[in-house]
Amino acid sequence: MTTPIIFDTDPGVDDAQAIAIALAHPEIELLGMTTTFGNVTIEVATHNALLLAELGGQQIPVAQGAATPMVKPKNPPPGHIHGDNGLGNIALPEISTQALPQSAPQFIVEQVNARPGEVVLVAVGPLGNLAAALQLDPSLVDKVKQVVVMGGSIREGGNVTPVAEANIFNDPHAAKAVLEARWPLTLVGLDATHRCVLDPDSMARIVEAQGKLGRVLGESYAFYRTFYQQALGIDGCCPHDSCALAWLLRPDLFTTTRGTLSVVTEGLAEGQTILAPQARAFVDARWTRDATVEVCMGADGPAVVEWIVETLTAGA
Amino acid sequence: MTTPIIFDTDPGVDDAQAIAIALAHPEIELLGMTTTFGNVTIEVATHNALLLAELGGQQIPVAQGAATPMVKPKNPPPGHIHGDNGLGNIALPEISTQALPQSAPQFIVEQVNARPGEVVLVAVGPLGNLAAALQLDPSLVDKVKQVVVMGGSIREGGNVTPVAEANIFNDPHAAKAVLEARWPLTLVGLDATHRCVLDPDSMARIVEAQGKLGRVLGESYAFYRTFYQQALGIDGCCPHDSCALAWLLRPDLFTTTRGTLSVVTEGLAEGQTILAPQARAFVDARWTRDATVEVCMGADGPAVVEWIVETLTAGA
Ligand SMILES: [Ca+2]
Ligand SMILES: [Ca+2]
Repeated sequence: MTTPIIFDTDPGVDDAQAIAIALAHPEIELLGMTTTFGNVTIEVATHNALLLAELGGQQIPVAQGAATPMVKPKNPPPGHIHGDNGLGNIALPEISTQALPQSAPQFIVEQVNARPGEVVLVAVGPLGNLAAALQLDPSLVDKVKQVVVMGGSIREGGNVTPVAEANIFNDPHAAKAVLEARWPLTLVGLDATHRCVLDPDSMARIVEAQGKLGRVLGESYAFYRTFYQQALGIDGCCPHDSCALAWLLRPDLFTTTRGTLSVVTEGLAEGQTILAPQARAFVDARWTRDATVEVCMGADGPAVVEWIVETLTAGA
Repeated sequence: MTTPIIFDTDPGVDDAQAIAIALAHPEIELLGMTTTFGNVTIEVATHNALLLAELGGQQIPVAQGAATPMVKPKNPPPGHIHGDNGLGNIALPEISTQALPQSAPQFIVEQVNARPGEVVLVAVGPLGNLAAALQLDPSLVDKVKQVVVMGGSIREGGNVTPVAEANIFNDPHAAKAVLEARWPLTLVGLDATHRCVLDPDSMARIVEAQGKLGRVLGESYAFYRTFYQQALGIDGCCPHDSCALAWLLRPDLFTTTRGTLSVVTEGLAEGQTILAPQARAFVDARWTRDATVEVCMGADGPAVVEWIVETLTAGA
């Protein structure tokens, strides 16, 4: 049985790895990709989504989405992490396909309404497209099967500020709309993704198995790895975005808790995701004990990495 | 060698245990206690500080301080945790002593200036008195030997909101002034104190050794324990305030890190303490890599509890 997903992405080195998984995994039916600014500009994001699908030898619809945050000013993309071209500044082949005429939010609305109760939205960038889709059609909250968001941090601390993770920080107002909406949602944040390190040997196996796509994955990984070495002292990279797909297909590799999420949109803690755990009462009624979301609090890192490698070497 | 300290407190059940330690420990010279609203009203705080010193058989100056937060409205004291009288609503003897004529901030300024470079401020309640003392005499930042604050949470989550600890939440503006001042400061927050559980057997040993004071410690503990059982499912209590003294005399029992602290004063994250670790670079220059404070990130809980019990049974 396959799960139909829409993959919302800002590729991005770790996005590229996740896209390769979405293309390769036999249990995933990739209905399309929707693109957003974030790791790169919106134009680069769309280009890379099209390119990666072509390199993977598949025709996947790509719909372009948010070029800017909803409210706050747009920061420049983090070229020192993903490269200005989002793929480690390596030389890239020409692309021959182009994006759909409809926008990302419209594509999401159409696809979910065409298969109510079936579609999973997997979002691994800033959340403007999902927020806009909810504005177009609030009934999506009852029609999606599941929303999986790579973003945020509960106990782990942030990667852009001491408390904020990049996808949420890049558009906190969109994140607030998406994470506080009452739809079936699982947050896969740094509490889980920082447990996983994709090491150079694992990447070498993936490169070997993935042909033309493998070359791009491997060379962009080398660039991203340099950032991890210099900034964090880690030899390898956290495969953040792949973790969202790992949770979808192998939830047993993650520890989770339930509660409600709030997103801070202003001030020092801007972009922080706050979890009010269902298990814990607080005096202020604002911190309800309802359980509206599931949050990953940890992961079996080596097992997640092994799942990634198995998925990307299975056909080889 | 003894360390001269001023103990700033809102007693409170766990404050009372810490006061007993400050009275009993041979390496502590208790210059005085300063009182604040928090667990109780300011009048009850001052009454309890005087009472506990009397029950300990010592004449300790007590100076009354902040009755309210600096900016935000005052919440009612948490009678369900500490009792309306701050000591578990047990019957208490009459007191025969009274507070000093000078205010808490003035007392702090006088004492520190009388012994520059020697005095340690140990604050285990909302931080209005220390903030006011800094306003009276900004040169205190260079004259105190050390400031130890029980409060805040970095990774552990809060106890009043999902991210805020009570002492900071009760007066975030005062906390901001104190934790962001550039003086030698160590934060002993929930990351450390939640590792420590004072169990009923340990308390029984303390009660036996502490005479009249022991009765009050034991009976108030019984009330506080009920709260811990019902709200948190723990049999025993976290000796939060005693941990500040434990850090002062036994820093080897704690794991610490260095960085800068910021306090959130508004919005959802109100009362949160944010640590920018010295070891980690962030893009935004607001998150400097200076190391202005030390923060406890963990503790050897059983060893801390054993130190508390040893201190309070040593003379028996
Ligand atoms: Ca991404
Ligand atoms: Ca206290």
